[in-house]
Amino acid sequence: MTAGTQGDAIPPVIDNAQAASRVILVCEHASRVIPTAWGTLGLTAEQQAAHIAWDPGALAVAQGLSSRLDAVLVHAQASRLVYDLNRAPDQRGAMAIRSEDQDIPGNRGLTAADRMLRTAALYLPFHDTLHGVIAARIAAGRAPVVVTIHSFTPVWFGTPRAVEFGVIHDEDPTLARAILDRAGATGMDCRLNEPYSAADDVTHTLRLHATPYRLPNAMLEIRNDLIATPAACAAMAETLAPVIAGAVASLPMKESVL
Amino acid sequence: MTAGTQGDAIPPVIDNAQAASRVILVCEHASRVIPTAWGTLGLTAEQQAAHIAWDPGALAVAQGLSSRLDAVLVHAQASRLVYDLNRAPDQRGAMAIRSEDQDIPGNRGLTAADRMLRTAALYLPFHDTLHGVIAARIAAGRAPVVVTIHSFTPVWFGTPRAVEFGVIHDEDPTLARAILDRAGATGMDCRLNEPYSAADDVTHTLRLHATPYRLPNAMLEIRNDLIATPAACAAMAETLAPVIAGAVASLPMKESVL
Repeated sequence: MTAGTQGDAIPPVIDNAQAASRVILVCEHASRVIPTAWGTLGLTAEQQAAHIAWDPGALAVAQGLSSRLDAVLVHAQASRLVYDLNRAPDQRGAMAIRSEDQDIPGNRGLTAADRMLRTAALYLPFHDTLHGVIAARIAAGRAPVVVTIHSFTPVWFGTPRAVEFGVIHDEDPTLARAILDRAGATGMDCRLNEPYSAADDVTHTLRLHATPYRLPNAMLEIRNDLIATPAACAAMAETLAPVIAGAVASLPMKESVL
Repeated sequence: MTAGTQGDAIPPVIDNAQAASRVILVCEHASRVIPTAWGTLGLTAEQQAAHIAWDPGALAVAQGLSSRLDAVLVHAQASRLVYDLNRAPDQRGAMAIRSEDQDIPGNRGLTAADRMLRTAALYLPFHDTLHGVIAARIAAGRAPVVVTIHSFTPVWFGTPRAVEFGVIHDEDPTLARAILDRAGATGMDCRLNEPYSAADDVTHTLRLHATPYRLPNAMLEIRNDLIATPAACAAMAETLAPVIAGAVASLPMKESVL
């Protein structure tokens, strides 16, 4: 990653680019790194390491799924506090001035030029790279399926969350329901469209990349206390890989016109 | 434009990049040029000049609108017979083997590699450039409106078409209806979702760029016998500019959160 100046593009990383599975894994909140061009955003070291900066454990689970499913993975290299890649540039959360109960001083008073610079440096390289991966596979007749991997905090504004595994969909619920049907067997507290749903405007990546192409899609949310160590992340990937594989295998196959 | 080999990217042209209007004009079928890397696609010179290769008059009307509305315009440099930019890579029409009653010999028997090459050379550069224009304006809080400019042939499979001006929308009909409301005064035969509609899968550009961001959008279709000369194109732009401007001015303004 280079971002010595705010104009430098910070593209995502593509793992397992030649993978055979239909599944395309996406991890928008993989990194807590604030590129040097943006300093500290006025945050303490503790704040920079907290869930407001990233989805702890999500990348390790996504990488575990990538190897187990033989699926390509596109993941971000910078913190969502600079740009939240799962938000459009005009959504309040794209460059949030507040996250849960924390102020983000470096995001206060951004000008149009500041917002355009972050959009050009972070948002466009991420989504254009992902678009390239998806379009190439569509062109090859490989019928992609988009699955984004997230984690959420067990306590939100002081209230504990009971849900352990959430499955969220955009317009088309088919894949999300198929995953949920199989997830119950894991013993986790599994719920559809919790702790968030499309109504909360948290499905931007799915809206941008899956819905226009009518690709099956789901956003997976794992409570981060369940994936707090490398071993726990590997175990979660081991648990979820057959759930996702089974759900994808159950999808009605769209007849190819190619 | 360079396309000496099929691997060369052929990006669109951006006219009037710094334009002040909310309107972003798009012309996917602006050009009948078959880049040299693709030879003639097995077509005669007459076929290469016909409406199957492009939308005659659409670019001149779009450029006339761009200057009259002070609107940015993104237009293609290559024929839709190589890649139809208003189609996803898995749509039959993206690299059509037949158009109306004509065979396209050079599109027969394409391999996955052929399709991926055209997608990389034509589809991705076009849509990623357009995405960049749209995202930058969204980031700047400029509330873009997407209007695509097309023309259609007065006779289709031997049957004359009475409609002269068609207004087509994707999910959100607001702008299309507002344009249609004002178009009647032009004296043309104006119709909603004719000669095609989203149900015919002809709104890919709108689905990809407008719907995910909830941008007002419309696809304008002008019968090409009405725009057969430069003077007729200029007159059509003069007629349509106030129709579009009035419709855009009538839109409810979404409250900006920026």
